[in-house]
Amino acid sequence: MSEQTTARLLITCPDRPGIVSAVSSFFYNHGANITSLDQYATAPEQGTYFMRLEFQTPHLNVSRQVLPSTFQDAVANRYEMQWSLNFAADRKKMAILVSKHDHALLELLWRWSRQALHCDIHSVISNHPDLAEEVQRFGVPFYHVPFSAAERPAAEEKVQGLLQGADLVVLARFMQILSADFVAPWTHRMINIHHSFLPAFVGANPYQQAYDKGVKLIGATAHYVTADLDQGPIIEQSVQRVSHRHDVDSLRALGQEMERQALARAVRWHLEDRVLVHANKTIVFD
Amino acid sequence: MSEQTTARLLITCPDRPGIVSAVSSFFYNHGANITSLDQYATAPEQGTYFMRLEFQTPHLNVSRQVLPSTFQDAVANRYEMQWSLNFAADRKKMAILVSKHDHALLELLWRWSRQALHCDIHSVISNHPDLAEEVQRFGVPFYHVPFSAAERPAAEEKVQGLLQGADLVVLARFMQILSADFVAPWTHRMINIHHSFLPAFVGANPYQQAYDKGVKLIGATAHYVTADLDQGPIIEQSVQRVSHRHDVDSLRALGQEMERQALARAVRWHLEDRVLVHANKTIVFD
Amino acid sequence: MSEQTTARLLITCPDRPGIVSAVSSFFYNHGANITSLDQYATAPEQGTYFMRLEFQTPHLNVSRQVLPSTFQDAVANRYEMQWSLNFAADRKKMAILVSKHDHALLELLWRWSRQALHCDIHSVISNHPDLAEEVQRFGVPFYHVPFSAAERPAAEEKVQGLLQGADLVVLARFMQILSADFVAPWTHRMINIHHSFLPAFVGANPYQQAYDKGVKLIGATAHYVTADLDQGPIIEQSVQRVSHRHDVDSLRALGQEMERQALARAVRWHLEDRVLVHANKTIVFD
Amino acid sequence: MSEQTTARLLITCPDRPGIVSAVSSFFYNHGANITSLDQYATAPEQGTYFMRLEFQTPHLNVSRQVLPSTFQDAVANRYEMQWSLNFAADRKKMAILVSKHDHALLELLWRWSRQALHCDIHSVISNHPDLAEEVQRFGVPFYHVPFSAAERPAAEEKVQGLLQGADLVVLARFMQILSADFVAPWTHRMINIHHSFLPAFVGANPYQQAYDKGVKLIGATAHYVTADLDQGPIIEQSVQRVSHRHDVDSLRALGQEMERQALARAVRWHLEDRVLVHANKTIVFD
Repeated sequence: MSEQTTARLLITCPDRPGIVSAVSSFFYNHGANITSLDQYATAPEQGTYFMRLEFQTPHLNVSRQVLPSTFQDAVANRYEMQWSLNFAADRKKMAILVSKHDHALLELLWRWSRQALHCDIHSVISNHPDLAEEVQRFGVPFYHVPFSAAERPAAEEKVQGLLQGADLVVLARFMQILSADFVAPWTHRMINIHHSFLPAFVGANPYQQAYDKGVKLIGATAHYVTADLDQGPIIEQSVQRVSHRHDVDSLRALGQEMERQALARAVRWHLEDRVLVHANKTIVFD
Repeated sequence: MSEQTTARLLITCPDRPGIVSAVSSFFYNHGANITSLDQYATAPEQGTYFMRLEFQTPHLNVSRQVLPSTFQDAVANRYEMQWSLNFAADRKKMAILVSKHDHALLELLWRWSRQALHCDIHSVISNHPDLAEEVQRFGVPFYHVPFSAAERPAAEEKVQGLLQGADLVVLARFMQILSADFVAPWTHRMINIHHSFLPAFVGANPYQQAYDKGVKLIGATAHYVTADLDQGPIIEQSVQRVSHRHDVDSLRALGQEMERQALARAVRWHLEDRVLVHANKTIVFD
Repeated sequence: MSEQTTARLLITCPDRPGIVSAVSSFFYNHGANITSLDQYATAPEQGTYFMRLEFQTPHLNVSRQVLPSTFQDAVANRYEMQWSLNFAADRKKMAILVSKHDHALLELLWRWSRQALHCDIHSVISNHPDLAEEVQRFGVPFYHVPFSAAERPAAEEKVQGLLQGADLVVLARFMQILSADFVAPWTHRMINIHHSFLPAFVGANPYQQAYDKGVKLIGATAHYVTADLDQGPIIEQSVQRVSHRHDVDSLRALGQEMERQALARAVRWHLEDRVLVHANKTIVFD
Repeated sequence: MSEQTTARLLITCPDRPGIVSAVSSFFYNHGANITSLDQYATAPEQGTYFMRLEFQTPHLNVSRQVLPSTFQDAVANRYEMQWSLNFAADRKKMAILVSKHDHALLELLWRWSRQALHCDIHSVISNHPDLAEEVQRFGVPFYHVPFSAAERPAAEEKVQGLLQGADLVVLARFMQILSADFVAPWTHRMINIHHSFLPAFVGANPYQQAYDKGVKLIGATAHYVTADLDQGPIIEQSVQRVSHRHDVDSLRALGQEMERQALARAVRWHLEDRVLVHANKTIVFD
């Protein structure tokens, strides 16, 4: 499917008979060719309904500008829908916040550079200068913003300014706790990779926690960021078997593979408009 | 979702714009509440289109008897659809063919007895008498049909007779090769579990083959049976890590867990009308 | 390896140079053929050292009765070893406590009945009468001991009495909380299956908790029981991918497969003397 | 464990009682501290025996130069051992052959640059010039050697010359078939990554083959190279679930993750002297 002709609609609404029929007929009548349709309802009746529609636009008989209001009037109002329409050609701008660990960052830049993540890289921002060179090799702007205790509010303000124009912020092992105020404007548009299988091992140094507990599997969790640390909606999790032979360092090395994998998937799904959030949980139409 | 009110429609047709709209509108207009809809096309354009629709029947405004012809006239003809409509309450009748190994058979009977497989057990037929008692404990009829070389054609005829009235035949480690004639009436209604990760290790004694080759993963494959041995459409595969420490016996023991898992899933999907076949491959709407 | 000739030695001691040499030379000099040797130390130096030795006894030049004291005098004293010696032919006697869910129980009985678990079944004890018939089919004694609130201490006493002679107690989804006093005599000889990926979802109804949290993987944990609920040393964990489409019931159904798998492995490892405990964690020489 | 003080011994010999005792006593008596010992025999009796010993050298009472001949005289002769002794500080020199696909190459360079692969990079050689810049960024020499049909023998000769001094050659998706003569000097020192779960889909374009067959899992295989294409001893395999929704391109994208994972593991195991070969199969002491 060409990126130029692909559009995606995400819908959330109270479940009622007739939704698929109304939506699919609307798009058919307007010349859109539906190439993918996923739906889910939280309950057989009276639940909340979710839909993801992917369609091709070459034969659309209304302009892209007019399509939204037409849909609102013809369908969305009647079913009390919350919805968003995205054209794949309008690539999302992804900013990445990182500290010193480069594995999650590089996984994203690497996939992006080989067209496996369809987005633009807006910027990389770090509280350490260490990764500047590595980032700039990819032709991506790098900003160093120190986060010492004294200057934290100023630092957050500066970062918020740098993020202007971004559509998605990824915390690729950013080791600073961000304030609720900072996070607020990025609801369901900020993804964090936590280096444990949440809700196990919330908080600091999860590999040490996993080692102390003697678990037989370690994991990583990609989730949307909310004010409540490590409690946001989970998008993806990966796990890997370990044994008593793994010390904290080798747990960390293995875990970093899980982090790369889980984060890369979560980011791709977000970029392809595959993730909806409801009741602090995600619906992922993968 | 109550089994009493659930119906499922499977469609295969040439891909064309308007199918979702036509189908969903038809059911909406006839009072059916669509609770699940999956679709897939083999190509962005000009491909083959597949749909699975699950809907609830309480408010249907046509009788179950009339629904098929109404759908044929109103929708199926226009789109050249091949389709089948199943009511969950009409439980499929499953027959099981087995030899001496009981693990795959027992996994199915066990799940069935705890309502995890929604079907009736039609019968269990074996070329050995060994498992009679174990099967009868479940209140299931057991038939012993010897398959010695001399009496093979007669044996096949006898089994074919016993299978009268079955909707699905499962070869749960049935160690006799069945003739093309025997198999023919059961196209896409006969499931075999092969004890390897096909297409690796076709044929006899795959665990010995896997051991000789020194693979690091072993698997099992559930597939529809065709005249061509071990070449039918694959429904499900499971794998498990192994190492040089596994001898043929321990590969077999581990592999039997994979067999149980893959077969149980494949059978459940078939019973729930989740499997379509096209070009010797399956589309599984799981 | 024949069960009749196999013996296993488990050792824990302060790590020091020369242990492997001393142990392997001792057994070589006494005619034992070492067929498996695993070792692990918690640190490169000054750590705690663990060894599992499997050897064949046909050419042993001391009697089985004398071997322990000879080993104690010749090797164990010098290295301050804690150790245990087990002959595979002395099968452990396994008791199983269960409530109403039969899946974990049946997995164990089933594997046992096909010689995949090398033990004797001592008894099955339940606080409900429901599973009596199913257990007796296997030729295994079943005891029903009600656990109503009023009679709990008496019930525990009765169960403790029934467990006389058992070597291992498995809680195969036993839904009563056992007192510290009850548990005390069974340190590292009582295995529980918890229906979550611990330490996530400690306590009651973990599938509901997992559903509410929206995790993308569910699991099961087999662990030794300690006075502290769900906090004992973890022996094995299994996980399985899930999605938003899984409701609590389907999480439970999938989870039960994980429970069966994790418990069966943990029990087998214990029976084969593959598990050592140190600092509330297990060393599993699998 | 410090790389400076770590040594590893690999042994293959006919199985006989007394080997562990002889080897461990030898090293203990010469002041080596054994920090890891793994063994395996192909049969309970009369089989072939394999051992990997890791020990620390600080208190060795013979020189590293004299140790080999001492071991040969004192132990190896008696047990007809084939053996090799490696000091971790003598890092292996790894050469990489690659064509146009960069994912496997970059995974190796990336891990190497972050000290996750303990080796020196000898060189990267390609039949295409495309990856020169990317390789040189890592400070690694890059050689372009065209492999057109006419000049193949000359090209092989040139590459063989460039490989002078390498200890290990990795074919990181090198798309040229190498002659038996070229391969011969590198027995068990040349690792290839094949982009399928061998022995399924031998030969060209395995992702297309997997797609045509409709398998539900795809994989990758890292193996030692022998004259017989894709038939060498398997070191590691990885698999990943797929569905009918994956076209050839998305199978390839997913498969590349498996290739990276399987190859990186196989290379690490080889570098750490964890792999022995016997009867065209590997023993991996991981």
